Amino acid sequence: MRAPDELRALVEEHIESLALTPELAGLQESMRYALEGGGKRIRPVICLATAEAAGAPATEALPAAVALELVHTFSLVQDDLPAIDDDDERRGRPTAHRAFGDGVALLASDALLTEAFRLALGYEDPDVARELVAATGGMIAGQFLDITDADVELAEIHRLKTGRLFRAAVELGLCVAGLDERERSGWHPFSNELGLLFQAVDDVLDGDGYVLRLGEAGARQVAADAADRARAALEQLEADTSVLREIVDDLAVRTT
Amino acid sequence: MRAPDELRALVEEHIESLALTPELAGLQESMRYALEGGGKRIRPVICLATAEAAGAPATEALPAAVALELVHTFSLVQDDLPAIDDDDERRGRPTAHRAFGDGVALLASDALLTEAFRLALGYEDPDVARELVAATGGMIAGQFLDITDADVELAEIHRLKTGRLFRAAVELGLCVAGLDERERSGWHPFSNELGLLFQAVDDVLDGDGYVLRLGEAGARQVAADAADRARAALEQLEADTSVLREIVDDLAVRTT
Repeated sequence: MRAPDELRALVEEHIESLALTPELAGLQESMRYALEGGGKRIRPVICLATAEAAGAPATEALPAAVALELVHTFSLVQDDLPAIDDDDERRGRPTAHRAFGDGVALLASDALLTEAFRLALGYEDPDVARELVAATGGMIAGQFLDITDADVELAEIHRLKTGRLFRAAVELGLCVAGLDERERSGWHPFSNELGLLFQAVDDVLDGDGYVLRLGEAGARQVAADAADRARAALEQLEADTSVLREIVDDLAVRTT
Repeated sequence: MRAPDELRALVEEHIESLALTPELAGLQESMRYALEGGGKRIRPVICLATAEAAGAPATEALPAAVALELVHTFSLVQDDLPAIDDDDERRGRPTAHRAFGDGVALLASDALLTEAFRLALGYEDPDVARELVAATGGMIAGQFLDITDADVELAEIHRLKTGRLFRAAVELGLCVAGLDERERSGWHPFSNELGLLFQAVDDVLDGDGYVLRLGEAGARQVAADAADRARAALEQLEADTSVLREIVDDLAVRTT
């Protein structure tokens, strides 16, 4: 079992050496710019740790894990566009559209999504790609609820916008390890908590979302409760989930 | 063998009754708006006609054919956005972003793409989705060359931006009919001409592209030559390609 930092290093290496479709030629620069912006790679690390817990070597899950990161990056590039948040900076650098122009950034985001599906389709089992496509659709649905100020609970927006990719991180790791749909469903009580845990901590760090609704202490409690339920769910699984437990602990106390 | 108009009716019916992922909820309205804008459905019709020529019933190819139309519609919605062409009208109606706002239109385009992959992944053979993903990547690469005024031949831009989806129309029809990669490659001399034929006629109708480089007569000649090569390629195939021949004839003389 590899520790989270080892898994993160694997992800970084795989992203750095990732062979993008040659046809994308000049567009690759903006794709790599967005992809190499110093993210924490939390989703791919969860994917790899899950694969190992389910008995597959992390390396086997790398394409699926990186595909998840490509989908996540696609969503960040688009969120930053003038059509959505119109942000100039992300992680201390100009956003993709500030660096490359709106049109190129948009196409780079599309290409990131398409490459993600290509990676997922590299597996013999089409369930890897099916799960990634379903999660992406859910994420887009959550983003729609978010930008239209739809009259739905914050928890429902998070379940879709953030939660679906986190759930997919677990699901893809299990798919790669060869678990069928019934076996995978036993992991849902765990995977369903991850998005909420991540988002509530994010809101505490950014002072928005749950903090605006429940105050900082209330938001911290949401995160703590989600972490407790995630830990309890892990204990129900017949697998060595020690690394996943460590990841949950880290997510609950992260400061960046 | 169904005639092109019968195939078009099948496509329209399937699009009208298409069950989008329920999670997309409020976003479905803008997706359907873009999808039901009165397109000619040329790509899906070619897909169905190819499937029939290769021995599969058209109905079996419908999800793949409609997936192609979803990818095409995704590209139209994005082309119209302020980030690319900033167009207010398409086919006599407000463009999606004029009707629903830039953010919702962008998400609708993403959801159209994601739904396209979902439909393609409904087939047991993952090559259907693989081919669609590869064609989409090629189309995006062509769009990048187009908007950045890259120093490449117009033919190369068209080969990617327009040609890849047309080629995929044939390829998906053959995949659905169960032809393997080697068998499918025999159809490339035909499928490679379709994008050029379509685009050169488009340029004649719009007075741009090839018309600006070669004059109207020159552009017409490009189209006529592509149509001739397409017909000759069909004759080399051991299949009843009469309906595809009719489609080529129609494409060569279309006025809208």
